[in-house]
Parts: sequence; C-alpha cells; structure tokens
Amino acid sequence: MEITKVSFRTGVKPEDMEHVREIVTSSGFFYPVEIDVAVELVEERLKQGEASGYEFIFLEVEGITVAYSCYGLISLTKSSYDLYWIATHENQRGNGLGRILLAETERDIAARGGTAIYAETSSRGQYLPTRMFYEKNNYTLKARFEDYYDQGDDLVFYVKKV
Amino acid sequence: MEITKVSFRTGVKPEDMEHVREIVTSSGFFYPVEIDVAVELVEERLKQGEASGYEFIFLEVEGITVAYSCYGLISLTKSSYDLYWIATHENQRGNGLGRILLAETERDIAARGGTAIYAETSSRGQYLPTRMFYEKNNYTLKARFEDYYDQGDDLVFYVKKV
Repeated sequence: MEITKVSFRTGVKPEDMEHVREIVTSSGFFYPVEIDVAVELVEERLKQGEASGYEFIFLEVEGITVAYSCYGLISLTKSSYDLYWIATHENQRGNGLGRILLAETERDIAARGGTAIYAETSSRGQYLPTRMFYEKNNYTLKARFEDYYDQGDDLVFYVKKV
Repeated sequence: MEITKVSFRTGVKPEDMEHVREIVTSSGFFYPVEIDVAVELVEERLKQGEASGYEFIFLEVEGITVAYSCYGLISLTKSSYDLYWIATHENQRGNGLGRILLAETERDIAARGGTAIYAETSSRGQYLPTRMFYEKNNYTLKARFEDYYDQGDDLVFYVKKV
C-alpha cells in the first residue's frame, strides 16, 4: 500500500447523505430499505444535532470519504452503545481501513464514558466477512435470534466491553 | 372475583396519554424517563397513525382503562414483533388481566402475520414478577446482556414464536 493520507472527521455535512448512500450501496448486498435507513440517520443528525443520538466518524483518504461509522448511546441505558453502521466503500475494501475506523470509534465511545458496544448483524452467508471482522476485533458473539429478519436469516449480536 | 365487564379497545385516543402515564406510574418502579417514553409512544401513534409502527390494545374494566400493551413490527424484519410495553394498573394486579391482555396481543400479532414476539426486561429484583409472567406464558429466555442498563442491571430478552 502506498503512503496515503488517512484522516477522521466527526462533523456531519449535508453531502454526507450522498457519501453514506454511495458507501453502503457499493457492497451490493444491502436492501434498498436498509440503505434508506442508513441515509435517514445522517438526515436525523443534520436536523437534530446531538439530540439525534447518532454520532458519526467519517474516514477520508486523500480527502475522499470512503468509510464511516454511526453509533450512539442506547436509550434508557447508562453507558451501552449501539454500533448502528460501519461500512467501507467496496473499492477500498481489504486495506485495513475498517479496522482503524473501528478502533477510532471504540476510542471515542470509551472517551464518552461508554462501557460496552453492541453490534447487530445477520447470519446470512454474505455477512460472513462482517462477522469475521467483529471476531478478529475481539467482539464476542452474545446471542442469536433464529429467523429474526426472515426465515433462515438470524439476528446475531456481538458485544465488546470497552 | 365478581363478574365484571372486560373489553379490549385498539383505537387510540388523546386521553390515553394520561391513562398510560397513570398505569405505568402506578407500579412505582419505572424511572421518570421510562414513563416519558411510554407516553411518547402514544403521542407518536396519535400523530402518525399506523405509520408510527406502534399498535396498542387497551383493556377496560367497567369502561375504565386499567391495562395496555404496545407492540409493533420490528424495522427491517419480515414478521418479528417487539412487545414494547405491557402493564396493568397496580390496583388491578393479581386479577389475571395481564394474562388475558397478553393473549389478545399475541392473537393480534399472529393475525397480522407475526411469527415471533420479543420482550425485553431487566434483571433487577423488582422485575422478577415480570420475568415470571413471561415464563408462565411460555416465553423463552433467549439472551442476557450483563450490565446493559447499568452496573448490575442486565437486559433480559424473551421470545415466543406465534
């Protein structure tokens, strides 16, 4: 890998709605309704600011936004965080960017007083890299709800204490 | 128990905000922020109608609203329902009303095509009757997230296939 300038950005801009749409679309495996939800979270943040409960970190390579995470304190909990989204643009996959973005996200959650991070994903085959990603980064498989999303499509919960 | 007229009502009225506040306050063990959330769900239903995603059943005894359930299809799932709230006024506890309200709620979820009902509660001692209520009604303990709400206050997940 050549030397590239990688930086984090936490301020959310209107154009991030398009960045997020492009990033989550690029993998080709999210459903349209899931993509819409991802974009709506950016919109909520832009409208309501911190009151939205959604925090973002955008990862930029040479000034281009190529990955992002979205997370927040879970309502009615004291210090449990939900990692709603973490995604890297398909054309940047395999460069370890997801890992450094996840580490930065965990650092920020800990700095906010967070004590645990919950991540939900699916049992479907196409999410195997996602599950491996969490496991390599020391997330623990905590629960599995059979047929949660649909027949044969289970919900899988991961947790990491921070 | 004397013969009383028990009926269900699914239409939500503005005065249900007060009914819900009174019912969930009566037990004395919900936090104010939790009570506010319960009332907000009624408000969302009144504002947005079915688009809110929140369904309600109110149980009336002699025309007085004494218990209610709030539930809805979980976003991004095909037929999984979340039982957000089920509560009976303290002065009506022990009369089996919760049980018949739960049965009616399950019947309605099944009629809507629901295949599973998820209920979340806390591990705290005061929720022991809640957990026993689910277990007596054939809900299965599915997962436990330690220290989820706070130190020593775990999240407990129950599920029932319908």
